[in-house]
Amino acid sequence: MAELRRRARGGGGAARRAERTAVRIETARFIERNIPDLEILTPEALEIIEANAETILEEIGVAFVENPAALERWREAGADVSGERVRLPRGLARTLCATAPARFTQAARNPERNVEIGGRSLVLAPVYGPPFVRDIDGGRRYATMADFEKFVKLGYMSKWLHHSGGTVCEPTDVPVNKRHLDMLYAHMSLSDKPFMGSVTDPDRASDSIEMCEILFGKEFVAENAVMTSLININSPLTFDNVMMGALERYAAAGQACIISPFIVGGAMAPVSVMGTLTQVLAEVMAGVAYSQLIRPGAPAIFGAFVTSIDMNSGAPTFGTPEAAQITYGAGQLARRLGLPYRSAGSFNGSKLPDAQAAYETANSLNAGLVSGVNFMLHACGWLEGGLVASPEKFVMDADQLGVLHKLAAGVDISAEAQAMDAIREVGPGGHYLGCAHTQANFKAAFWRSDLLDYKPFETWADDGARDTTQLAAARVEKLLADYQQPMLDPATDEALKAYIAKRKEQMPDAFV
Amino acid sequence: MAELRRRARGGGGAARRAERTAVRIETARFIERNIPDLEILTPEALEIIEANAETILEEIGVAFVENPAALERWREAGADVSGERVRLPRGLARTLCATAPARFTQAARNPERNVEIGGRSLVLAPVYGPPFVRDIDGGRRYATMADFEKFVKLGYMSKWLHHSGGTVCEPTDVPVNKRHLDMLYAHMSLSDKPFMGSVTDPDRASDSIEMCEILFGKEFVAENAVMTSLININSPLTFDNVMMGALERYAAAGQACIISPFIVGGAMAPVSVMGTLTQVLAEVMAGVAYSQLIRPGAPAIFGAFVTSIDMNSGAPTFGTPEAAQITYGAGQLARRLGLPYRSAGSFNGSKLPDAQAAYETANSLNAGLVSGVNFMLHACGWLEGGLVASPEKFVMDADQLGVLHKLAAGVDISAEAQAMDAIREVGPGGHYLGCAHTQANFKAAFWRSDLLDYKPFETWADDGARDTTQLAAARVEKLLADYQQPMLDPATDEALKAYIAKRKEQMPDAFV
Repeated sequence: MAELRRRARGGGGAARRAERTAVRIETARFIERNIPDLEILTPEALEIIEANAETILEEIGVAFVENPAALERWREAGADVSGERVRLPRGLARTLCATAPARFTQAARNPERNVEIGGRSLVLAPVYGPPFVRDIDGGRRYATMADFEKFVKLGYMSKWLHHSGGTVCEPTDVPVNKRHLDMLYAHMSLSDKPFMGSVTDPDRASDSIEMCEILFGKEFVAENAVMTSLININSPLTFDNVMMGALERYAAAGQACIISPFIVGGAMAPVSVMGTLTQVLAEVMAGVAYSQLIRPGAPAIFGAFVTSIDMNSGAPTFGTPEAAQITYGAGQLARRLGLPYRSAGSFNGSKLPDAQAAYETANSLNAGLVSGVNFMLHACGWLEGGLVASPEKFVMDADQLGVLHKLAAGVDISAEAQAMDAIREVGPGGHYLGCAHTQANFKAAFWRSDLLDYKPFETWADDGARDTTQLAAARVEKLLADYQQPMLDPATDEALKAYIAKRKEQMPDAFV
Repeated sequence: MAELRRRARGGGGAARRAERTAVRIETARFIERNIPDLEILTPEALEIIEANAETILEEIGVAFVENPAALERWREAGADVSGERVRLPRGLARTLCATAPARFTQAARNPERNVEIGGRSLVLAPVYGPPFVRDIDGGRRYATMADFEKFVKLGYMSKWLHHSGGTVCEPTDVPVNKRHLDMLYAHMSLSDKPFMGSVTDPDRASDSIEMCEILFGKEFVAENAVMTSLININSPLTFDNVMMGALERYAAAGQACIISPFIVGGAMAPVSVMGTLTQVLAEVMAGVAYSQLIRPGAPAIFGAFVTSIDMNSGAPTFGTPEAAQITYGAGQLARRLGLPYRSAGSFNGSKLPDAQAAYETANSLNAGLVSGVNFMLHACGWLEGGLVASPEKFVMDADQLGVLHKLAAGVDISAEAQAMDAIREVGPGGHYLGCAHTQANFKAAFWRSDLLDYKPFETWADDGARDTTQLAAARVEKLLADYQQPMLDPATDEALKAYIAKRKEQMPDAFV
């Protein structure tokens, strides 16, 4: 691993030459919040939820489906197992959760891109899972592997994105049982940011681990989290054997999992914020506890993907006040449990990257920041309730993530920032544009969008009167034109390709 | 006044018949927050700002321009006056501010629409001041009185808007010295929500008061705040005689003023959050103190209209992290001063009601809610840095204000909301759509947009694949079609018209 890094960061003369001519790809360090969290639940509310969650686990229990080994593990841990139903004595889940770390490092192949997950950190990762793509040129269509690679490149080029993500879209032109290999290879070769592993089958999780062993070295993977993968709970209260199978592989390998109820409130959870939070807590505690039965100390994240349903159409809705309340509340519950927290994202139900998409997204991003989210999946690129990934929306959202960075940094209270000399210099009726303090500080003073329009009306009109989607399309084009693949050790690259070829040969193609 | 109210709310048979056939215009009660504020400044930072603000007032002072009476008042109050410069001994401004009420009621002609300003309240008012209008049909053009009336009607029809505002746009087809009369009459006759008075000349403030005496009765106006008007400070540190002249008339009449620095950071204040907050506090303290010199106990609001400058183009920028930090910080300073707080709004720099407009607006609305704003001017309808009012943006933003209401209400922790019976009923693997708890609660459970699209993709496509602006245009049309003028006592109406006619006759037309 140490050897790999030395080589990847400029071994021979060719590498050094490449580095000198390379476009400088700047990635911000993950966010360390210097502002407080907004805590909307009172201690009384929190205690009610925690007591009720214990009641759920004790009295109703959770189902571990088609997973006899899991039932056996639970039995040994002291749970009451009846059929596939697992009932946990009060306190058992919380006790088991205590061995999961409050904060951990996920390593990237470029160690400058390592991220810390937990505590006051906030790590931003792109959209996950859409089967469709919509772009300004092609409209809405099924996603392909070429789209996938485009999103990985955009993620690599996005300054405010710390993480390459996982299934940035679902490439439907590759067999379903093999696409995880191509997706992982894209993250590994087209980016040097950290990424996620496959969860759609336990063997695909094992493939993910083995490919990481090639990329990072076997010893390094044994000792470090190199993937953070998304384990959805089949709410209400059900843990299916596919997701749990993937969890078992990852936890056993010491790799991080997000244990995440997937809830459209009113359908998979009660039609109330308190009820939903209670169910979320019960589910996450059971899931994280299970990961600790597999391997105490395996990194686990308290996930909450929760939104509400539109009772007229049955469609999930996003950027709503109830979703925000759940995001705030679940953050408080996660902190009391001592676990890193995953929630929020560029959620919206719009078909287009228009004002609806932006209102709903901004509502969720803002709630995510002040609710204390540590890992924000879907932080950019999401459209149409997650059915669609959009490159224009991707860069629009990724630009807004810069706002979160600056806000989270808090307020500089140094003597220079107090600016009393400037106020003295300018005095009543003057202006600050030319004063010494402004000259010394203006470059770093204000966050500036790389995408939005700040021009006077006339200039904007002369430039084609472009809306945000058109500005975003231009930025997508520029980022892809500027893209340069980060150096990957050729021997590692060959080994990854050989592994993929071997695995593909072992399986017939499957498309469902 | 009591007589007027009785009559306005259904005196004769005609009125009763009108009431029975009227479209029900529902307006939400002003928000009473049941969630905490986000306090991003530490006690240390707050103390530094407060000490530095006192230093500004003591050492640099503020200018009261072309206003000898003001200088005399300050001298009597113990300030050091030299030329037009007023220097305040440490503590004087804060002591004077203490007589301003922490919370007050602004009466509306329909007492159901009265608003409380201060404490945990949040009152929402529309955009103020744009000389241009942009709509989906006509593009961008100078605003007219017909536009003004349209915005007042939209405000009246908007459920989440508590206040009719003031100069919802600047009607450029009416003489500048007379348009305040027409604008006030529009608020008084087309709406029954509370409104703002004119501030562009002291005599126009007096006209505003006299028209209110006709509408509410002279005694009522003497005893109640019936207008909340916007007094901008000419930052840095300058109080011009026009705005102060209006303030003097309003304060003397016991009418409420928002004392509001108008700051583009980097131009009218230092290029730092701490420096800007310090100047804001000094300016507001001087302004509110002056209002209390006019009449101790006159309602005054701590205003902060603060944004940052784009150092490339010189344009003001909106929805930025620095603007949010100032919004949070100024809220803390206002609460420590015991004053109601005005800030935030539907701010954005976009030329169109597109994604940029919505991101920036949502950033500001969200910051406004959790920074403890009590009076949010510009809560809907703002476009292009405030140069443009847009009916489509107006209804889009007004819809989003519903999100703030629900969020602010906090989380219901009742046994019904805990939903344990529902969780028991549904159990692992079930769904909640049909359960008893869902049936009993779904109607009020989730906030629902009156504008945004929640349809499945195919239905949306069949319906014309409309973006948010097109949906908003349809809503504008519907609201205006449904609009019915609220009953106004005919004698009052005649008296208002007579006053306006008399005043117009007394003045030659002026257009600058």
